[in-house]
Amino acid sequence: MLEKVLRVNALYDFYQPLLTPKQQEYLNLYYLNDFSLGEIADRNQVTRQAVYDNLKRAESALETFEEKLGLFRKYKTRLTVISKMKSLAGHLDREESKQLDSFINELESLD
Amino acid sequence: MLEKVLRVNALYDFYQPLLTPKQQEYLNLYYLNDFSLGEIADRNQVTRQAVYDNLKRAESALETFEEKLGLFRKYKTRLTVISKMKSLAGHLDREESKQLDSFINELESLD
Repeated sequence: MLEKVLRVNALYDFYQPLLTPKQQEYLNLYYLNDFSLGEIADRNQVTRQAVYDNLKRAESALETFEEKLGLFRKYKTRLTVISKMKSLAGHLDREESKQLDSFINELESLD
Repeated sequence: MLEKVLRVNALYDFYQPLLTPKQQEYLNLYYLNDFSLGEIADRNQVTRQAVYDNLKRAESALETFEEKLGLFRKYKTRLTVISKMKSLAGHLDREESKQLDSFINELESLD
Protein backbone atom coordinates (compact mmCIF):
# COMPACT_ATOMS: atom_id res chain seq x y z
CA MET A 1 0.00 0.00 0.00
CA LEU A 2 2.82 2.45 0.85
CA GLU A 3 4.38 1.81 -2.55
CA LYS A 4 1.03 2.55 -4.21
CA VAL A 5 0.62 5.79 -2.23
CA LEU A 6 4.12 6.94 -3.16
CA ARG A 7 3.58 6.18 -6.84
CA VAL A 8 0.20 7.96 -7.01
CA ASN A 9 1.77 10.95 -5.24
CA ALA A 10 4.66 11.06 -7.70
CA LEU A 11 2.45 10.76 -10.78
CA TYR A 12 0.09 13.35 -9.31
CA ASP A 13 3.01 15.80 -9.10
CA PHE A 14 3.53 15.49 -12.85
CA TYR A 15 0.03 15.15 -14.23
CA GLN A 16 -2.23 16.98 -11.77
CA PRO A 17 -3.08 19.77 -14.28
CA LEU A 18 -4.42 17.19 -16.73
CA LEU A 19 -6.95 15.76 -14.27
CA THR A 20 -10.48 17.10 -13.79
CA PRO A 21 -11.10 19.29 -10.70
CA LYS A 22 -13.05 16.43 -9.07
CA GLN A 23 -10.26 13.92 -9.70
CA GLN A 24 -7.76 16.40 -8.26
CA GLU A 25 -9.93 16.96 -5.19
CA TYR A 26 -10.46 13.25 -4.44
CA LEU A 27 -6.83 12.29 -4.97
CA ASN A 28 -5.74 15.20 -2.82
CA LEU A 29 -8.01 14.25 0.05
CA TYR A 30 -7.39 10.51 -0.12
CA TYR A 31 -3.67 10.26 -0.89
CA LEU A 32 -2.23 13.54 0.33
CA ASN A 33 -4.50 14.29 3.30
CA ASP A 34 -5.35 10.77 4.43
CA PHE A 35 -9.14 11.15 4.32
CA SER A 36 -11.11 7.88 4.23
CA LEU A 37 -13.48 7.00 1.38
CA GLY A 38 -16.38 7.51 3.81
CA GLU A 39 -15.18 10.95 4.85
CA ILE A 40 -14.81 12.10 1.24
CA ALA A 41 -18.27 10.68 0.47
CA ASP A 42 -19.87 12.57 3.41
CA ARG A 43 -18.12 15.77 2.50
CA ASN A 44 -19.35 15.59 -1.11
CA GLN A 45 -22.75 14.06 -0.39
CA VAL A 46 -22.12 11.11 -2.69
CA THR A 47 -21.81 7.38 -2.02
CA ARG A 48 -18.63 5.72 -0.85
CA GLN A 49 -18.76 3.65 -4.04
CA ALA A 50 -18.88 6.79 -6.21
CA VAL A 51 -15.77 8.13 -4.48
CA TYR A 52 -14.03 4.78 -4.92
CA ASP A 53 -14.90 4.63 -8.64
CA ASN A 54 -13.70 8.19 -9.19
CA LEU A 55 -10.42 7.50 -7.40
CA LYS A 56 -9.82 4.35 -9.48
CA ARG A 57 -10.50 6.30 -12.68
CA ALA A 58 -8.15 9.07 -11.57
CA GLU A 59 -5.37 6.59 -10.75
CA SER A 60 -5.88 4.90 -14.08
CA ALA A 61 -5.72 8.28 -15.85
CA LEU A 62 -2.40 9.02 -14.11
CA GLU A 63 -0.95 5.68 -15.25
CA THR A 64 -2.16 6.32 -18.81
CA PHE A 65 -0.49 9.75 -18.87
CA GLU A 66 2.72 8.16 -17.62
CA GLU A 67 2.57 5.44 -20.30
CA LYS A 68 2.10 8.14 -22.94
CA LEU A 69 4.54 10.81 -21.74
CA GLY A 70 6.86 9.03 -19.27
CA LEU A 71 7.57 12.23 -17.30
CA PHE A 72 8.14 10.43 -13.98
CA ARG A 73 10.41 7.83 -15.61
CA LYS A 74 12.46 10.56 -17.31
CA TYR A 75 12.61 12.55 -14.09
CA LYS A 76 14.10 9.58 -12.22
CA THR A 77 16.74 9.07 -14.93
CA ARG A 78 17.59 12.78 -14.80
CA LEU A 79 17.99 12.55 -11.02
CA THR A 80 20.60 9.81 -11.49
CA VAL A 81 22.53 11.77 -14.11
CA ILE A 82 22.42 14.93 -12.00
CA SER A 83 23.72 13.04 -9.00
CA LYS A 84 26.70 11.83 -11.07
CA MET A 85 27.27 15.41 -12.27
CA LYS A 86 27.35 16.64 -8.67
CA SER A 87 29.96 14.07 -7.86
CA LEU A 88 32.02 15.20 -10.88
CA ALA A 89 31.64 18.85 -9.81
CA GLY A 90 33.23 17.92 -6.48
CA HIS A 91 36.40 16.90 -8.32
CA LEU A 92 36.80 19.98 -10.49
CA ASP A 93 38.75 23.17 -9.87
CA ARG A 94 36.93 25.81 -7.88
CA GLU A 95 35.74 27.97 -10.78
CA GLU A 96 34.69 25.05 -13.00
CA SER A 97 32.98 23.37 -10.08
CA LYS A 98 31.01 26.54 -9.39
CA GLN A 99 29.93 26.75 -13.01
CA LEU A 100 28.80 23.12 -13.16
CA ASP A 101 26.91 23.50 -9.88
CA SER A 102 25.02 26.49 -11.25
CA PHE A 103 24.07 24.55 -14.41
CA ILE A 104 22.88 21.68 -12.22
CA ASN A 105 20.73 24.11 -10.23
CA GLU A 106 19.16 25.37 -13.43
CA LEU A 107 18.32 21.81 -14.49
CA GLU A 108 16.89 20.95 -11.08
CA SER A 109 14.66 24.01 -11.09
CA LEU A 110 12.86 22.59 -14.15
CA ASP A 111 11.66 19.42 -12.40
CA MET B 1 2.77 31.27 -40.96
CA LEU B 2 6.21 29.61 -40.77
CA GLU B 3 6.41 30.48 -37.09
CA LYS B 4 3.01 28.88 -36.56
CA VAL B 5 4.04 25.72 -38.42
CA LEU B 6 7.24 25.42 -36.38
CA ARG B 7 5.38 25.87 -33.10
CA VAL B 8 2.68 23.32 -33.93
CA ASN B 9 5.39 20.89 -35.00
CA ALA B 10 7.29 21.38 -31.75
CA LEU B 11 4.21 21.03 -29.54
CA TYR B 12 3.14 18.00 -31.57
CA ASP B 13 6.49 16.34 -30.74
CA PHE B 14 5.72 16.61 -27.05
CA TYR B 15 1.98 16.04 -26.86
CA GLN B 16 1.13 13.81 -29.82
CA PRO B 17 0.23 10.82 -27.60
CA LEU B 18 -2.40 12.88 -25.79
CA LEU B 19 -4.29 13.75 -28.99
CA THR B 20 -7.05 11.61 -30.51
CA PRO B 21 -6.11 9.45 -33.52
CA LYS B 22 -8.08 11.81 -35.81
CA GLN B 23 -6.33 14.91 -34.43
CA GLN B 24 -2.98 13.17 -34.92
CA GLU B 25 -3.86 12.22 -38.49
CA TYR B 26 -5.01 15.70 -39.53
CA LEU B 27 -2.07 17.51 -37.91
CA ASN B 28 0.31 15.03 -39.47
CA LEU B 29 -1.11 15.51 -42.95
CA TYR B 30 -1.50 19.29 -42.76
CA TYR B 31 1.61 20.40 -40.86
CA LEU B 32 4.11 17.62 -41.43
CA ASN B 33 3.15 16.46 -44.92
CA ASP B 34 1.88 19.71 -46.41
CA PHE B 35 -1.54 18.41 -47.50
CA SER B 36 -4.17 21.10 -48.17
CA LEU B 37 -7.46 21.26 -46.24
CA GLY B 38 -9.23 20.14 -49.44
CA GLU B 39 -6.95 17.14 -49.91
CA ILE B 40 -7.49 15.99 -46.31
CA ALA B 41 -11.24 16.49 -46.75
CA ASP B 42 -11.32 14.37 -49.94
CA ARG B 43 -9.22 11.66 -48.39
CA ASN B 44 -11.54 11.40 -45.37
CA GLN B 45 -14.81 12.07 -47.20
CA VAL B 46 -15.67 14.99 -44.93
CA THR B 47 -16.10 18.71 -45.63
CA ARG B 48 -13.21 21.14 -45.82
CA GLN B 49 -14.83 22.99 -42.90
CA ALA B 50 -14.87 19.84 -40.76
CA VAL B 51 -11.15 19.37 -41.37
CA TYR B 52 -10.50 23.02 -40.53
CA ASP B 53 -12.51 22.82 -37.28
CA ASN B 54 -10.73 19.64 -36.23
CA LEU B 55 -7.32 21.18 -36.94
CA LYS B 56 -8.19 24.29 -34.90
CA ARG B 57 -9.34 22.11 -32.01
CA ALA B 58 -6.17 20.04 -32.20
CA GLU B 59 -3.95 23.16 -32.21
CA SER B 60 -5.89 24.54 -29.27
CA ALA B 61 -5.48 21.24 -27.41
CA LEU B 62 -1.71 21.39 -27.98
CA GLU B 63 -1.54 24.93 -26.58
CA THR B 64 -3.62 23.89 -23.56
CA PHE B 65 -1.28 20.97 -22.83
CA GLU B 66 1.69 23.35 -23.08
CA GLU B 67 0.04 25.82 -20.69
CA LYS B 68 -0.57 22.99 -18.23
CA LEU B 69 2.70 21.05 -18.49
CA GLY B 70 5.18 23.43 -20.18
CA LEU B 71 7.22 20.59 -21.69
CA PHE B 72 8.36 22.60 -24.73
CA ARG B 73 9.29 25.61 -22.59
CA LYS B 74 11.31 23.40 -20.21
CA TYR B 75 12.94 21.65 -23.15
CA LYS B 76 14.16 24.96 -24.57
CA THR B 77 15.61 25.99 -21.20
CA ARG B 78 17.32 22.62 -20.90
CA LEU B 79 18.84 23.08 -24.36
CA THR B 80 20.41 26.35 -23.23
CA VAL B 81 21.86 24.81 -20.06
CA ILE B 82 23.17 21.80 -21.97
CA SER B 83 24.84 24.07 -24.49
CA LYS B 84 26.64 25.89 -21.65
CA MET B 85 27.66 22.52 -20.19
CA LYS B 86 29.15 21.48 -23.54
CA SER B 87 31.19 24.65 -23.59
CA LEU B 88 32.40 23.93 -20.04
CA ALA B 89 33.27 20.35 -21.03
CA GLY B 90 35.54 21.76 -23.74
CA HIS B 91 37.64 23.45 -21.05
CA LEU B 92 38.07 20.48 -18.73
CA ASP B 93 40.84 17.89 -18.59
CA ARG B 94 40.44 14.97 -20.96
CA GLU B 95 38.96 12.48 -18.47
CA GLU B 96 36.60 14.96 -16.82
CA SER B 97 35.52 16.29 -20.18
CA LYS B 98 34.69 12.75 -21.33
CA GLN B 99 32.61 12.15 -18.21
CA LEU B 100 30.66 15.38 -18.56
CA ASP B 101 30.02 14.67 -22.25
CA SER B 102 28.61 11.27 -21.43
CA PHE B 103 26.27 12.79 -18.80
CA ILE B 104 25.16 15.37 -21.35
CA ASN B 105 24.41 12.58 -23.82
CA GLU B 106 22.26 10.85 -21.21
CA LEU B 107 20.31 14.05 -20.62
CA GLU B 108 19.86 14.66 -24.33
CA SER B 109 18.54 11.16 -24.90
CA LEU B 110 15.59 11.97 -22.60
CA ASP B 111 14.28 14.81 -24.75
